Amino acid sequence: MDCCSLAVGTGGWEYTLGDMYKGRKSHLNGLSGESELLQRIAKVGGARKKNLKNSGIRLGIGDDAALWKQRKGHETALTTDWFLEGTHFLRNVHPPDAIGWKSLARAVSDVAAMGGESRCCLISLALPGDYTGRWLAQFMKGVARASRQLNCPLAGGDTTRQERILINVCVIGDVKEGKAVLRSGAKAGDRIFVSGRLGEAELGLTTLRKKKKVAETDRTLLQKHLYPVPRIALGSWLAANSLATAMMDLSDGLSSDLPRLCRASDVGARIFQERLPTAGKAFADRFDAKDRMQAALHGGDDYELLFCVRKNYLSKIPGSFSGIALTEIGEVTADRGIFLADSHGKQLNLTASGWDPFRN
Amino acid sequence: MDCCSLAVGTGGWEYTLGDMYKGRKSHLNGLSGESELLQRIAKVGGARKKNLKNSGIRLGIGDDAALWKQRKGHETALTTDWFLEGTHFLRNVHPPDAIGWKSLARAVSDVAAMGGESRCCLISLALPGDYTGRWLAQFMKGVARASRQLNCPLAGGDTTRQERILINVCVIGDVKEGKAVLRSGAKAGDRIFVSGRLGEAELGLTTLRKKKKVAETDRTLLQKHLYPVPRIALGSWLAANSLATAMMDLSDGLSSDLPRLCRASDVGARIFQERLPTAGKAFADRFDAKDRMQAALHGGDDYELLFCVRKNYLSKIPGSFSGIALTEIGEVTADRGIFLADSHGKQLNLTASGWDPFRN
Repeated sequence: MDCCSLAVGTGGWEYTLGDMYKGRKSHLNGLSGESELLQRIAKVGGARKKNLKNSGIRLGIGDDAALWKQRKGHETALTTDWFLEGTHFLRNVHPPDAIGWKSLARAVSDVAAMGGESRCCLISLALPGDYTGRWLAQFMKGVARASRQLNCPLAGGDTTRQERILINVCVIGDVKEGKAVLRSGAKAGDRIFVSGRLGEAELGLTTLRKKKKVAETDRTLLQKHLYPVPRIALGSWLAANSLATAMMDLSDGLSSDLPRLCRASDVGARIFQERLPTAGKAFADRFDAKDRMQAALHGGDDYELLFCVRKNYLSKIPGSFSGIALTEIGEVTADRGIFLADSHGKQLNLTASGWDPFRN
Repeated sequence: MDCCSLAVGTGGWEYTLGDMYKGRKSHLNGLSGESELLQRIAKVGGARKKNLKNSGIRLGIGDDAALWKQRKGHETALTTDWFLEGTHFLRNVHPPDAIGWKSLARAVSDVAAMGGESRCCLISLALPGDYTGRWLAQFMKGVARASRQLNCPLAGGDTTRQERILINVCVIGDVKEGKAVLRSGAKAGDRIFVSGRLGEAELGLTTLRKKKKVAETDRTLLQKHLYPVPRIALGSWLAANSLATAMMDLSDGLSSDLPRLCRASDVGARIFQERLPTAGKAFADRFDAKDRMQAALHGGDDYELLFCVRKNYLSKIPGSFSGIALTEIGEVTADRGIFLADSHGKQLNLTASGWDPFRN
């Protein structure tokens, strides 16, 4: 919770910050200092005693570190995710409560992808001074709702002041010892499954961009982009019953993420295009089949699970789990290529076209 | 490890990013994508098998989440810290290996301040494209050195591309069950101690600013500012022997941090100015006694421990611990004010003048 003593006013950026400090008290929304900001965060952060009780948190916000206890017979799953203005969301487009929800949900999804359950989180926030009032309250509402629904109360974090809204979320989860499902366990002959529908988040983003304002658009189209729901129960069930040989969540798009799983497992894959569960009814009115297929192949942010199942376990995988479709989309191959087979049996290389900040 | 599909090119900042993407392949230092960047990080990140073995890490960089195991009879200590260009360091002033060292050391210090030991860390990095080569290698050298010396190997993280260098470090530690020292345990009559000397980091920063370049200045003066050493062994010893009633690390300066400890314990404090261990010999040549006293009272970034000891345990506190001076600087009072007593017995309110980004 600490900040350093590097005073403002030494460089280009600091000059702007220094500027902001001068006589713009109203822009701090009446804040007296960082301690008060932490109180505002703790108040709505789902860090109340009853929330903490079952999470393993013994000491939450307000000390040098939080204290937390792993459940007996479990291992701890640790993950961290950037959520940055301009890269992951736009300040004037995305509702603050959606930014709060999604920043937590996407990190929880990483734990779900190991077959684990989220237990608590640390949130680091850097905010412009005038975002510490109404915007922060709305943001924290989204965080608090996600905390409750995903069983992931706020245990701590760090705050500082910046021109841009910067968010970093660390989720601490746990999984029964020896039960975690890694990316590296797939074997040739395994069948490849995905949960839910693919591409809806991407098409939601496209919708949002065209419409500019959320209120003008159909909420159904935006739901997956703004408020993704990590597949915690499905991941846990697959892990507890040792049904998946490898698993990961789809965050950057099937064409980017599948090669990662294959590389970790030292295998290849063949995906059958016609089996892909593309975006549903609400999207079919606005997007043609080709666009929906492109989004299913390359669109990111779906937070569905991609998992592999041994052939002789196939009968144990239901068509849906708690209302979420489970679809067999392809098979793991010994050959390390990643192929897409169309309905005519024609096979193409599936080229990664999802989001990668470090790809030219 | 995932990024979202919000493409570049939609807003002001993104435009700049979009610009960077166009045909500036050399600026990515030959990177083919995020996966290769992660390999570069993992290679020097101290995440080799022998480092992982004793840390409790069962699965490190490369999956959706890391897997880690808390030691038996321990609780987990969790902390996270921003380390941002322009706020916490300056790109053209601070050596990249010092940025790497300090980003990890300051988060480890939070765990030390609970009496815990660091076990592993997650590092989130956002970098400009042309900082993924030499700069990153130097930065990771600093991280790796801190990882080894502070027993805190890299278990995972997240990476993305930004104009500014953004760092967020999460440290996972553990402490024997029931032994953690909180901020809230101080009682009236307890004596207040600090480790080491106060204000040296602040005076180092002042030196650095005057000289602009590190190479031109005396390294001794900069050591504490660039490469602070968290007091892990001292914190553990105090905790294991139940010698401290309350403890925290000094990150924002005594005048800012002491009131936080007092507020948590619902007490006040009286500090005796003449007892304060101000900056040592090397600094006395350059800074007068008044400047050294101001730095000791208000300067941040020292990462020394501030702790309280019951009167009847005083004899158990040595004058130094592993070469680090332990100095009794004052006493805890039932009255909630925070006072500074000078050598003439005159008492003043000690006003928080350390770093607080949200104070006008």
